[in-house]
Amino acid sequence: MQELFSDRICDVPPSFIREILKVTEDPSIISFAGGLPSKELFPLEALKDATQKVFETGGNEILQYSTTEGYRPLREYISRRYQEKMGLTVCPDNILITNGSQQGLDLLGKTMLNEGDEVIIEAPGYLGAIQALSIYRARFHPVEMDDDGIIIDQLVDTLANANAKLMYTVPNFQNPSGVSYTNARRHQVIEALRNSHTLLIEDDPYGDIRFEGERTESFFRMMPERTVMLGSFSKTVVPSFRLGWIVAPDAILDKLVIAKQASDLHTNYFSQRVLFQYLSDNDLDAHIARIIELYGRQREAMLTAIEREFPTGIQHTRPDGGMFLWVTLPDGYAANDLLKLAIKDKVVFVPGDPFYTDGKQHNSLRLSFSTVDEATIDIGIQRLGKAMRELLGSRQ
Amino acid sequence: MQELFSDRICDVPPSFIREILKVTEDPSIISFAGGLPSKELFPLEALKDATQKVFETGGNEILQYSTTEGYRPLREYISRRYQEKMGLTVCPDNILITNGSQQGLDLLGKTMLNEGDEVIIEAPGYLGAIQALSIYRARFHPVEMDDDGIIIDQLVDTLANANAKLMYTVPNFQNPSGVSYTNARRHQVIEALRNSHTLLIEDDPYGDIRFEGERTESFFRMMPERTVMLGSFSKTVVPSFRLGWIVAPDAILDKLVIAKQASDLHTNYFSQRVLFQYLSDNDLDAHIARIIELYGRQREAMLTAIEREFPTGIQHTRPDGGMFLWVTLPDGYAANDLLKLAIKDKVVFVPGDPFYTDGKQHNSLRLSFSTVDEATIDIGIQRLGKAMRELLGSRQ
Repeated sequence: MQELFSDRICDVPPSFIREILKVTEDPSIISFAGGLPSKELFPLEALKDATQKVFETGGNEILQYSTTEGYRPLREYISRRYQEKMGLTVCPDNILITNGSQQGLDLLGKTMLNEGDEVIIEAPGYLGAIQALSIYRARFHPVEMDDDGIIIDQLVDTLANANAKLMYTVPNFQNPSGVSYTNARRHQVIEALRNSHTLLIEDDPYGDIRFEGERTESFFRMMPERTVMLGSFSKTVVPSFRLGWIVAPDAILDKLVIAKQASDLHTNYFSQRVLFQYLSDNDLDAHIARIIELYGRQREAMLTAIEREFPTGIQHTRPDGGMFLWVTLPDGYAANDLLKLAIKDKVVFVPGDPFYTDGKQHNSLRLSFSTVDEATIDIGIQRLGKAMRELLGSRQ
Repeated sequence: MQELFSDRICDVPPSFIREILKVTEDPSIISFAGGLPSKELFPLEALKDATQKVFETGGNEILQYSTTEGYRPLREYISRRYQEKMGLTVCPDNILITNGSQQGLDLLGKTMLNEGDEVIIEAPGYLGAIQALSIYRARFHPVEMDDDGIIIDQLVDTLANANAKLMYTVPNFQNPSGVSYTNARRHQVIEALRNSHTLLIEDDPYGDIRFEGERTESFFRMMPERTVMLGSFSKTVVPSFRLGWIVAPDAILDKLVIAKQASDLHTNYFSQRVLFQYLSDNDLDAHIARIIELYGRQREAMLTAIEREFPTGIQHTRPDGGMFLWVTLPDGYAANDLLKLAIKDKVVFVPGDPFYTDGKQHNSLRLSFSTVDEATIDIGIQRLGKAMRELLGSRQ
């Protein structure tokens, strides 16, 4: 049987996260491992009303096959929102609706990558992108991050020494680190890319979920001709509908549409109609404000507990938005060892290893604050601090 | 820009169909070109009720991320239906829910094919499969069809001379030809495959839509260890939900799940819940009976008009089910030339060329009878007969 499989499918790194989620079925375990939005905030009633309206006004056509590009009014909505919120001019023709932004990554791999083509990726980087592009046998060049974004000297070196076709970034509240690029760093990135042919992928699922500070500039504004944006409704409205989008220049979008047609003909049209109805009848920003309020409080609870509970020598990020923060153990300690202790203490997280493409870093971990309430965060971080002291003490 | 694209995306044959659909926006044109099911029969009210019930009983969880494999009760439903309708034992664990069966083809290409791997395909063959597998740079070996299925001598020769990893078939009411494999032919196919390592893909979106004759045996029953089945709810319940499935042996399913996770995490979960509710509350076979009754009448109208209107020398299939029939012009005539004349006479169809991977056949065409009522079919076939006489007369 083994000889039947493609080489590519053996290249994909396994999702550790899936394994950890099995442990969390025990209700006495506090989980900071998930990457899910809080389901308490899903607009169930409003989506129910929108669905009913679509059934009453849409007729049988809402159940028929539809266009590969996606429902035109939804693409127009996304275009208007780019203009209103970010001052970006994006033509609806340059927007393709996808099955979540994960499919955007698959379509970009399909459309762009030959076997062995080189891809610059943040280290740590988004695991879903590593998986999607591994399928097309990308050769990754990881570039490390500091608190202001990707490290420019390393990026410049990598651009000089590699022949990178793509560079993948999550510039706002990155998954897994929670880091956002400053405006200054963004300009430096674009300056570094100016002399290359590298296509920049700007994946922004969390940009709207900002607790503090001002919205930063988009890469797309600085280099629209060579930037592809990915967006998603999964973190702001509803994940189960699997609705995201790609913004790309004409020539690329044409190829993405061919790839999408070969992949699944088109995205669920009924759900596109329902989501558009919801967006037409509701104030998305008021809804997002509730998400910001909740996640902001939970981040605060996590940071406060971390300051109190974690032993000295443990570093962590302070995200201005999103769902995650990133913890780094002292050199020589492994997050996987910490996880074993933590499970005994009934708290779990995601070890950072799978977010690195070179397999060299083992001392970092991701904590999610989106789905755990403040009191539980406090208890969970106490437990994690205890496990950390146990880990660090074991060497002394 | 061009140097950015992958080689594979340049290999995909364009969809002629898309171009033809543009012509059909003129309401005075009768179209036999579409591949859509009749929207008149979509169970709009029943799906509305099912949706309401899911909203009322499901809670916020219906909007959350879900498992890559798909909604377990839906997989169990599919398993039970295989048992009840076809006597096939398929474990729910061996079923993966996909975004329509088109995604099944993409995932199989992803999981199985290295560049240049060889694939046996029916000639004519399903265009969606040609597109999906072209993306993975399959090398196709077309094997011709007669009225009983794929031609065995050719298949045996091809198996002997190629190193085929996959063989793709649509054994019931094939798109585009309408041909079904007889039971005898099925057994011959399996016998031919016994001495190979070739994995058989049995794509069956139309199997339930049988107007006459008995249900034939499935390849899966004869060779379960090396057959992958694809199924779909698009032709029987609702296309816009994009819900299909793959049945595969354990080792293959595990890899398909990895490929699916990298492709889009999971299929729209809300729609899986709604479809399952619909299937629980309604009699699917009674619904399918209405589809059979309508398409059966329309096929009859088309066959009757063809006998009356087409000039001698034109051959056609007589499908026992499905949505399509296949017309072959005398040698030396091109369906594309006929299309030009037909458009003037205000009737369109799909020329057969894109259904062949070797680019050699030009004298066949596909007619769909699913979306045009009997009276309109009669007029459309009259117009097409006139265009045929014009084409054939031009040479005499």
